[in-house]
Amino acid sequence: MDQNISNIDFSKGNGIVPVIVQDASTKEILTLAYTNKESLELTIKTGNSWFWSRSRKNLWMKGEESGNTQKIKEILVDCDSDALIYVVEPQGPACHTGERTCFHNSLKSK
Amino acid sequence: MDQNISNIDFSKGNGIVPVIVQDASTKEILTLAYTNKESLELTIKTGNSWFWSRSRKNLWMKGEESGNTQKIKEILVDCDSDALIYVVEPQGPACHTGERTCFHNSLKSK
Repeated sequence: MDQNISNIDFSKGNGIVPVIVQDASTKEILTLAYTNKESLELTIKTGNSWFWSRSRKNLWMKGEESGNTQKIKEILVDCDSDALIYVVEPQGPACHTGERTCFHNSLKSK
Repeated sequence: MDQNISNIDFSKGNGIVPVIVQDASTKEILTLAYTNKESLELTIKTGNSWFWSRSRKNLWMKGEESGNTQKIKEILVDCDSDALIYVVEPQGPACHTGERTCFHNSLKSK
């Protein structure tokens, strides 16, 4: 089913929703970030990943400093419209550490 | 790098962190949910996906009513230790609607 931006439920997260960034070709999960309505609108308008930083409290475009932008192929919405997936074509590593994905650590039980 | 549960930063989200559930074989993203320390410990201990419900304010195991449990293959942690991936082998649909994944809607620009 198709959704549009007015259907997204930003209320539960005080104006933000989590965004999973997934590589369109490898299906690898690259990053978990957050967006508010404004950064989602910028993402749709520009075709690049935009987010809201909870710590810096500002809008940011992935790659604005590093050049490692993410080209949007599709945006998916979950069943209760409070989480998104940006399906992207990454132009370089997603993680600030230089790793391809931010999820490069494994949790051990001990 | 390996992490353990004491490294997870539950503070930014007032005691909870987002969890992405990913199918181990297809790499499909199934659900975005949340966990606190207790449900993460249950997940590690039992080998099944446990979460914290923000709306009902209780611990829940995926499939406890439907039988559609998720067997944990691996747990991944992101670079700043405030988001997780449960890599799972699903025993049925992830979504309460009966769809295989909760992300079955596409966001359109209009």
